[in-house]
Amino acid sequence: MSSFTLARRAARMNPSVIREILKVTERPGIISLAGGLPAPESFPVEAMRAATEKVLRDAPREALQYAASEGYAPLREWVAAQLAQQGLDCDASQVLITTGSQQGLDLVGKVLIDAGSRVAVEAPTYLGALQAFAPYEPEIVSLPCDDDGPLPDALAQAQGARFLYLLPNFQNPSGRCMSARRRAEVADAAAAIGLPLVEDNPYGDLWFDSEPPPPLAGRHPASTVYLGSFSKVLAPGLRLGYVVAPHELGPKLLQAKQASDLHTPSFNQRVVYEVIRDGFLREHVPTIRARYKAQRDAMRAALERHLPAGCRWNVPSGGMFFWVELPPGVDALALLPHAVERGMAFVPGAPFYAADPRPNTLRLSFVTVPPAQIERGVELLAQTLKAHS
Amino acid sequence: MSSFTLARRAARMNPSVIREILKVTERPGIISLAGGLPAPESFPVEAMRAATEKVLRDAPREALQYAASEGYAPLREWVAAQLAQQGLDCDASQVLITTGSQQGLDLVGKVLIDAGSRVAVEAPTYLGALQAFAPYEPEIVSLPCDDDGPLPDALAQAQGARFLYLLPNFQNPSGRCMSARRRAEVADAAAAIGLPLVEDNPYGDLWFDSEPPPPLAGRHPASTVYLGSFSKVLAPGLRLGYVVAPHELGPKLLQAKQASDLHTPSFNQRVVYEVIRDGFLREHVPTIRARYKAQRDAMRAALERHLPAGCRWNVPSGGMFFWVELPPGVDALALLPHAVERGMAFVPGAPFYAADPRPNTLRLSFVTVPPAQIERGVELLAQTLKAHS
Repeated sequence: MSSFTLARRAARMNPSVIREILKVTERPGIISLAGGLPAPESFPVEAMRAATEKVLRDAPREALQYAASEGYAPLREWVAAQLAQQGLDCDASQVLITTGSQQGLDLVGKVLIDAGSRVAVEAPTYLGALQAFAPYEPEIVSLPCDDDGPLPDALAQAQGARFLYLLPNFQNPSGRCMSARRRAEVADAAAAIGLPLVEDNPYGDLWFDSEPPPPLAGRHPASTVYLGSFSKVLAPGLRLGYVVAPHELGPKLLQAKQASDLHTPSFNQRVVYEVIRDGFLREHVPTIRARYKAQRDAMRAALERHLPAGCRWNVPSGGMFFWVELPPGVDALALLPHAVERGMAFVPGAPFYAADPRPNTLRLSFVTVPPAQIERGVELLAQTLKAHS
Repeated sequence: MSSFTLARRAARMNPSVIREILKVTERPGIISLAGGLPAPESFPVEAMRAATEKVLRDAPREALQYAASEGYAPLREWVAAQLAQQGLDCDASQVLITTGSQQGLDLVGKVLIDAGSRVAVEAPTYLGALQAFAPYEPEIVSLPCDDDGPLPDALAQAQGARFLYLLPNFQNPSGRCMSARRRAEVADAAAAIGLPLVEDNPYGDLWFDSEPPPPLAGRHPASTVYLGSFSKVLAPGLRLGYVVAPHELGPKLLQAKQASDLHTPSFNQRVVYEVIRDGFLREHVPTIRARYKAQRDAMRAALERHLPAGCRWNVPSGGMFFWVELPPGVDALALLPHAVERGMAFVPGAPFYAADPRPNTLRLSFVTVPPAQIERGVELLAQTLKAHS
């Protein structure tokens, strides 16, 4: 680099492994079970069309002008009312609208992480969160987990950390959903050692059989930051999410937000509010659930039918992902090029571990492609496995 | 704060002085010459309506889905072609679409500023840039300027700084536009000492008599980051801007972008591209110029008519702002509550100085309110001045 001197933190930034994989697998003809892309058939195009028309007719100048960094007041109120129903009491003044919940993760990092300070995460955890935190140079503590989330006894390892980042509902990548009992144990163990929680909930609405237990944030709201998103229930291309924070933390998150992009597009906020204000999601989200449940069932059946002995997988009760353990000794990353050659793609599991990666794991998305392709994709994965392991 | 420990950088974050002022002055009946809000009458509502309709008809799934962090390829190509015409040779692969150019400033700070590293700015400079850089804890070097921008001889003070941040066209807040000669002197002096430039150009299209000289970036493109925006030529509520960087810096900015919000809303990018692709701005921007020129003239006449002796102001040849020097000893910040009481608002100049603030300066926007209100607002300012200084 000739004249530029990079900040030290730039050395912590890396290309997203997943995005690099997706680039390779985006060529036509590949059945991609890799991406976390919502089914485009589920996007409410008609409702979006009606809402944009209404916003541009009734309030075009407000929708196109600079706006408050906090977000559009009626949308903030809607979010607060919605969360209250789910067991998280908060008021609209605690809600900060963000440019996708990824921005919420960045703002949390900006406000809470010093170079060298400790941040605890689940093993495995959401890769985008690791990427959001990385520029702030934390020391990541990777907590041991079972199929129900972090082991309560392990929380002591996180003592003194700035926060514990959790994704309790249908976690990306593992698909697991924490039980009510585990939530209580983890939340109380964290509170006992003064460990704040950052609770991320992009998938909670995508349940198939029964609603997930209430958020951990409801138990100790004064020490929890909660993140939500419209990406999975409406459409990710709008980049609309939110952070709910205790009153004492709100002003700093708001200042960080101002410095980052002034405010989330006012147009998008008003359009989404028009779409959802009269209960649209009550009708719409069940159609997504039904679609994803059928696709989950198709993938489950395909895995049972095709995968060789020695493979193990969860059966997610919501969300978007299966998490597959290949036989010990098989390296999913090394397998990927062969799978792509045969015409399918997955995401290797190793990058989702902040420490001690398990190379024999992989993530399969069941939401992006329809059942027939799921069946074929899993069949190709099984063929690859048999030929190359 | 009970359980949260703030990052050290949080102490550098502060509420935007201007946004706090704007809150006070937003009550109905106040003639606000304070905000930098574009005239809402200039928003191309009809073109937006047609473009959103087209996007939701022709490519709804792409517009509502996750997308590349780099931005929408046709929009990046449009930006590169546009800049080439203005004297900045670059290709589309150097263009990163951002969530407003404020995000560009944040990404530049994230990638280039270490705690304690030096960053040079003009005196005065854009407050939003100071806020974007502050969380990365730079030591700000405030370069002396005259009506033509930074004094070339003063650049030596910035030796070793990570970059010099410049706003050469109709600067916010001073309204000044650097001459071709000064651009050459500053760019060459910077190159001679290995000082990179960050050139910010939100206002360049808003010229009244003749186009501003070509960007400094064109002289030493390998050591310049260039930022642009659609906020002033279309509408700020879309939050759409861009960064053009040398190839060696691009990947790090892209990684920082991914970590910050994954990508700028695909919907907004496609809608704006539909609006502008066939030359819309060639017709539209001249109407904004004509409107703002008339309003500039109205404010100039009002200042001449009403302001007492001892006041001095520039006559901006473009952009959005007059910069007024009150008689020495008058404190604009102390004057503001009295002005608001009389029914008008301005922004005090002091917060725009990174060092050695000049308390007797203030900024007036001539673009937000129509000529009759400009006249009345300036009259009220003059009355306030006479009564309270």
